[in-house]
Amino acid sequence: MLQVKTPEEALRLIETEFSPIGGHTETVPLEAALGRVLAQDVCANEYVPDFDRSTVDGYALRAADTFGCSDAIPAILNLVGEVQMGEQTDLALPRGACAYVPTGGAIPAGADCMVMIEYTEDYGDGTIGILKPGAPGLNLIFRGDDVRPGQTVLHAGSVLTPPELGALAAVGQTAVPVRMPLRVAVLSTGDELVPPEQTPGPGQVRDVNAPMLSALLRQYGAEPVFYGIVSDDEAQLRRITAKAASECDAVLLSGGSSAGVKDAACRIIASLGAVLFHGVAIKPGKPTILGKAGNTPIVGLPGHPVAAYFVSKLFVLPLLARLEGRVLKNHPVRAVLTENLGANHGRAQINACTLSERDGALSAAPIRSKSGLITQLAEADGYLLIDRDCEGLPKGAPVDVYWNL
Amino acid sequence: MLQVKTPEEALRLIETEFSPIGGHTETVPLEAALGRVLAQDVCANEYVPDFDRSTVDGYALRAADTFGCSDAIPAILNLVGEVQMGEQTDLALPRGACAYVPTGGAIPAGADCMVMIEYTEDYGDGTIGILKPGAPGLNLIFRGDDVRPGQTVLHAGSVLTPPELGALAAVGQTAVPVRMPLRVAVLSTGDELVPPEQTPGPGQVRDVNAPMLSALLRQYGAEPVFYGIVSDDEAQLRRITAKAASECDAVLLSGGSSAGVKDAACRIIASLGAVLFHGVAIKPGKPTILGKAGNTPIVGLPGHPVAAYFVSKLFVLPLLARLEGRVLKNHPVRAVLTENLGANHGRAQINACTLSERDGALSAAPIRSKSGLITQLAEADGYLLIDRDCEGLPKGAPVDVYWNL
Repeated sequence: MLQVKTPEEALRLIETEFSPIGGHTETVPLEAALGRVLAQDVCANEYVPDFDRSTVDGYALRAADTFGCSDAIPAILNLVGEVQMGEQTDLALPRGACAYVPTGGAIPAGADCMVMIEYTEDYGDGTIGILKPGAPGLNLIFRGDDVRPGQTVLHAGSVLTPPELGALAAVGQTAVPVRMPLRVAVLSTGDELVPPEQTPGPGQVRDVNAPMLSALLRQYGAEPVFYGIVSDDEAQLRRITAKAASECDAVLLSGGSSAGVKDAACRIIASLGAVLFHGVAIKPGKPTILGKAGNTPIVGLPGHPVAAYFVSKLFVLPLLARLEGRVLKNHPVRAVLTENLGANHGRAQINACTLSERDGALSAAPIRSKSGLITQLAEADGYLLIDRDCEGLPKGAPVDVYWNL
Repeated sequence: MLQVKTPEEALRLIETEFSPIGGHTETVPLEAALGRVLAQDVCANEYVPDFDRSTVDGYALRAADTFGCSDAIPAILNLVGEVQMGEQTDLALPRGACAYVPTGGAIPAGADCMVMIEYTEDYGDGTIGILKPGAPGLNLIFRGDDVRPGQTVLHAGSVLTPPELGALAAVGQTAVPVRMPLRVAVLSTGDELVPPEQTPGPGQVRDVNAPMLSALLRQYGAEPVFYGIVSDDEAQLRRITAKAASECDAVLLSGGSSAGVKDAACRIIASLGAVLFHGVAIKPGKPTILGKAGNTPIVGLPGHPVAAYFVSKLFVLPLLARLEGRVLKNHPVRAVLTENLGANHGRAQINACTLSERDGALSAAPIRSKSGLITQLAEADGYLLIDRDCEGLPKGAPVDVYWNL
C-alpha cells in the first residue's frame, strides 16, 4: 500500500525533513561565476562612483545662477573650462560660471547641477547662454549613489545573473566566492536498459533517464554523478545506492519499474535510513519515493522518462534548492486551452503542451501522449498543472503554463 | 540628429537587414549538448520501442477472452508463463491463456492487451482470475509508438533542452551535431574606464559592461570575445572595431558616452559599412546604434550599464537569434503594479522591478533608479515594458513582467 501524498504535502515534507547543508565553497573569477550560487554576502569597500558624476553632456553650474532664465532671457555664464573624462578636475566654479562636462565626467567643485547642452547656447566669446533653469542635483549621480562602503551589494544564496556580475564588477569583486555545485548521484535501474550508445537487443530499450536527468541537473547548476545502469538485483542496488549516498549530496534512483525492483527500492531506502513517502497523487509520477540515508535525500523516480522528468521538475529541483538554501523562481504564463482536456479527479495532472502566440494572446495545445514517449515531451514548449479537484478543463479555459523545459 | 526608430521598427530592421549565417558545426557528446543549437535535423533509424511493451505490471491476454467478466464473474485464464525484463519472450499465448508481464516488458505473441495486476486474482493452481475486461491495445505501447524509422525527431535550430537530450538518447544519437557558438566581440570604450580588478583613480570608474554583457552572451549561448577597453581615440577605436568585425560574428561597442566618442562610433560604423539606425525611442537606451560591416552587425550600446543591459536583452539577443535562425522564447507573466509609475509619452519605457507572490497573485514593485545604477538592477527580479503611447500606470494596474534576467 503506497503512503500517497498530495503534491503540496510532498513539498512540505521536503521543507521540513531537509535543511540547507553547509557545502564547500570555491573562489572563481568573475567570468566563470554566471549561474553559480554566491557563498557569502558581498559588501562594498568603497564608494561607487567615487565622485559626483554627470549623467548628460552639458554644463556644470550653480542652479541659483540660472533661476528664472528662459529661451527669451538666457542666464549668461562665464565658461571657465572643460572636464576631461577619467580625470579628476581641479576646476572650481566661482559664482556666475560654468564648465563643460561630458556624460560620466566629474563635476567641478562649486557646481550643484548639470544643464543639458541642448538647453544652452555657446556665444563663442567665452560665455554660455543657459536657456532652462537648473535645480540642485539635476542630471547628477552623487558620490556613493550606487554603493557606499559597508553596503551589502549581493546576498549569499543568489544565483548569479548577468546584472549581478555587473554589480560585482562595479565593486571590484573579481574573485567570487561560490558554493561548490551539489553532487547528485544518478542511478538507472532495470534489466531492460542499455546505454544510449548501444543498439538495444530484443526486449531492450536505451536508458533515456540518465542523460536527461543529468542534463536537468546541469541546467539547475548541480553536478550529476552517474553510477551506471544497475541490473534488477537487490543486493547490488543496495550496495551502489549506499555508496552513492555516502559520496553525494543527493541520490536519484530512476527506473526500477518492474514490481520487484519497485519494492526493492523502498526496502533499500528503508534499510539505509527512512522512507518519507512512497507515492504522490499526481499523474504521471505516482510511484515516486522520497527517503533519506542520514541527511542525504534519496529519490526513487518513475522509470517512464516523461514521468521521471516531471517529478524531477516538481520535486527534485525544489529539494536541491532546499539543500542549497536558494529560492527557485518559476512563474507560469496564462494561456487559453485549445481543446477540452480530461483529468483524473483526485490526482493532480501534469500535461505537456505547445504554446503559440497570436495577437499577443497565448494558446496552449495539450500534447496527448502515452506516458513514457519522450519524443513527444521533446516537442513541448511547456507544461500545465491541473488541480486534483478538477475533473477536466473545457476548450477556451485559462490555464497556467510553465514554459521553461 | 538621431534617426530614432521605435522598438518595433528596430526589431523589424534586424529581421530584414540580417539573415541566418551558415556558421560552423561541431559534434559533441550528448552530455555536452545542453543548451547548444542543433545543427541539423535528427532522424530515427529504428523503432522506439522496438517491440510491443507493457505500461503496467499485470497479465498479457487476448481481450476477447475477458469480455463480460467482472468481480462477480471473473474470466479464468491459464497462466502460461512470465516475461522477463530485457528479454525477448518466446511465449505465444493460445486462446484462454495469459502471461505475467512487468511494466516495460515485451508482450508475448497472441496477446493484444494488458490487464493490471490490481484487477486480477492468482488462484495458485495455474489459473488467474481476470476481474475487469481488457480491450485491444489497453496498457500497451506498440512498436514504434515513440519513433519510427525515418521520422524526424528534432529539427535543426532547436536549443537543446533536457527532454530533447532524452529524445536523442532514445534514438541512440550520442554524437550530436551542433552549431559552433556565435563569436561576439565586446569592446568597452571610454577614457574613464578601468578594468574591474583595478581600483579606480580620481574621475575613473570600473568597466561594468564588459563582464555583464559577456555573461549575458554566455547565458544566451554565444562566446564573448573581449577586445579590451579602448580609449576615446577615434583612429584606435576604428582599427579595433574593424579587426573585431573581421574576426567575429557580431560586434558590441559599449560605452563611448562622451559626445566625441558617440559621434565617433557612428562615423566608424558608417566608414566600415553602414549605420542602419542611430537612436531608439526607448528609455533607457535611446543612443543605441545599429550598423553593419559587410554582413557583420555592429551595435553601439549606451555606456550606462542598466541601459546597455536592457538594450542587449531587447535588441542584441534577437539579433543573435536572427543570425542563428533560432526562435527566442520569452513570455511575460501578469502581475499587479504596487504603486503608480510615470512614463514618458512618446518613448517606450523599461522598468526593472521586483516580484512577490501572495496567495498565488504576483505583485510587481518598480525599482526607482537613476540610469546606470547597476546594483539596483542586480536586486531586480525582472522588468516591465511600458508602451510608448502610455503616459503612466496607476497602482493596481496589470502589467506584463519578464522575469528572466
